[in-house]
Amino acid sequence: MRAAVMRGDRFVVEERPIPTPGEGDVLVKVRACGICGSDLHYFHHSEGMMALARRAGWPTREMEANLAAGPILGHEFVCEVVDHGPGARRDLAPGRRVCAMPFLARPAGPVLIGSSPQASGAYAEYMLLSEAALLAVDEAVPDEAAALTEPVGIAVHAVNKARLKPEDAAVVVGCGPIGLAIIAVLKARGQARIIASDLSPRRRALAATMGATTVVGDADVSAIAAAREAAPDAPLTVFESTGAKGMLHALILEAPPRAHIIGVGIPAGEESFLPMVAIAKEIALTFVIYYTPEEFAEALRLVSEGALDWRALVTGKVGLDGVGGAFAALADPEAHAKILIEPWREGGLPGR
Amino acid sequence: MRAAVMRGDRFVVEERPIPTPGEGDVLVKVRACGICGSDLHYFHHSEGMMALARRAGWPTREMEANLAAGPILGHEFVCEVVDHGPGARRDLAPGRRVCAMPFLARPAGPVLIGSSPQASGAYAEYMLLSEAALLAVDEAVPDEAAALTEPVGIAVHAVNKARLKPEDAAVVVGCGPIGLAIIAVLKARGQARIIASDLSPRRRALAATMGATTVVGDADVSAIAAAREAAPDAPLTVFESTGAKGMLHALILEAPPRAHIIGVGIPAGEESFLPMVAIAKEIALTFVIYYTPEEFAEALRLVSEGALDWRALVTGKVGLDGVGGAFAALADPEAHAKILIEPWREGGLPGR
Repeated sequence: MRAAVMRGDRFVVEERPIPTPGEGDVLVKVRACGICGSDLHYFHHSEGMMALARRAGWPTREMEANLAAGPILGHEFVCEVVDHGPGARRDLAPGRRVCAMPFLARPAGPVLIGSSPQASGAYAEYMLLSEAALLAVDEAVPDEAAALTEPVGIAVHAVNKARLKPEDAAVVVGCGPIGLAIIAVLKARGQARIIASDLSPRRRALAATMGATTVVGDADVSAIAAAREAAPDAPLTVFESTGAKGMLHALILEAPPRAHIIGVGIPAGEESFLPMVAIAKEIALTFVIYYTPEEFAEALRLVSEGALDWRALVTGKVGLDGVGGAFAALADPEAHAKILIEPWREGGLPGR
Repeated sequence: MRAAVMRGDRFVVEERPIPTPGEGDVLVKVRACGICGSDLHYFHHSEGMMALARRAGWPTREMEANLAAGPILGHEFVCEVVDHGPGARRDLAPGRRVCAMPFLARPAGPVLIGSSPQASGAYAEYMLLSEAALLAVDEAVPDEAAALTEPVGIAVHAVNKARLKPEDAAVVVGCGPIGLAIIAVLKARGQARIIASDLSPRRRALAATMGATTVVGDADVSAIAAAREAAPDAPLTVFESTGAKGMLHALILEAPPRAHIIGVGIPAGEESFLPMVAIAKEIALTFVIYYTPEEFAEALRLVSEGALDWRALVTGKVGLDGVGGAFAALADPEAHAKILIEPWREGGLPGR
């Protein structure tokens, strides 16, 4: 099979063996896969991530093996069942479209798809999934919508962790795909006050499309200031979805008393802040990642019902030979939001 | 009246006018007042606190005025009603003993007692309180117990914010008076697993007295490691009550997934940490300060019922002329835990 393999500072389309499904596995054909911000981070900062993992006292052997083998990334996928491994229940026949949480069940514990040579990702024609994790995608749901299930799952989880009340003001700082998905989920949940901010005019337009009730650029009025103006006494929850250096510190300084900050964006290294300020205001900081199976299923339901306007969010599609160009294009928030890889398609982005 | 006034790097007993109770105020005679860790911090680091307040964008005029006038600290008090201001309800007659949250109601908002020349504290023979805030102290309750109401209020609030379930393991890092009060409140609430750590053997002994079920010194086995050993699968809540530099970072590194860290101790400046680690583990950080009126009333009830062994905690008593010596003595955790000032008593600590 063909796969877009990460090799140092570029992607190379290589021929790889089609994986063989073991006990409980399903072989699937990849129909579409979104490029995630964490894929960009892995591509640009794998050395830094490894150094950080060592500082945190985490094992790095798997990541080293993956980098040596040439990683096949891709965990935001919609696929088609091809074949079942031994002992399968075969509830979903070959040809059925499926989504799944991007983890392969293995005896030593779940393995994140794309993070290990034993669990290659969806930047390829085929991959393995765990049968127990499969969710069937309805016929009426386009691939583009289904491929957004994973980032919407992140958003559903972040919003659940925020435990919002209807009267609360929700501030979304940073309108990348995750921030935009959070806005869409907040809207689907009926939150009346959704204040979004981004430095990019295009991202701000997308935030409004997704359901933000107020949209600002950080340069003029901050999102927190806009939220305080719109609802001076409403409890405030801030979704930090930039991962930008210094942002947590700035939000703690600006937040009103008893604000709840949800850390969704992943800063690359150390961050500093003033605990005295956080204490004086009784700030709560909740860091979140991933989702529960129930939240993932809810995300698929939301994208299936059209809660998220995929036509606005998906700004480009490429084949495996277009992955490198897509990674470069995603550096400009004015140019693109979400780019999908369709491994069976040829070519890159228009004009490249 | 006599007051122990903070003058630069020492305390001076000065003659000050007895304050005149205004509308809603009550003049009280101070019977006992605990020396709080925040008083020590104010004494040693007022310049740094001012610099930090400026960085946070907070007004510093009141603090400057207080430092210029010579602060009269003291917010952990039990008093006796002497006289009522105009328009008072006079429910509590002169001679009645009272506690109160340390705030004076003023038209511009509550003023923290001890923080302003207009709201002098309990390191003096007399002070003002707001009548609406008074809580009567039962006759059977000794002054020593009642004077602990304020720090126990901090502990009740911190424990409430932790929203513990009976099966959770509670870790208390740092067994100063606040950490010890948290242990006592956890015990009073029936938590079965209370793991405490402190570098000082005497503080560790006090932690056991207060109700900790496991006590460790950070040097050998950490509190988190001890908690994981005692209850490997129990959700973990960590009360950070040291305020020590680097402690939040260390706790985030060591904490198991989904740990809840309650920030009670107040670090003096900036703190750094690795958000990537906090995100990967979904750490929640809740910063807390003060209490609600209900929590303060619960604290008085707890100390009145003897939930806290004041005989173990109160390690010394001084008069106003002994305040400087008491501040020096509190630098050694082996020597003292809580020292009470009794403004009507003469002299300092034994041997000083």
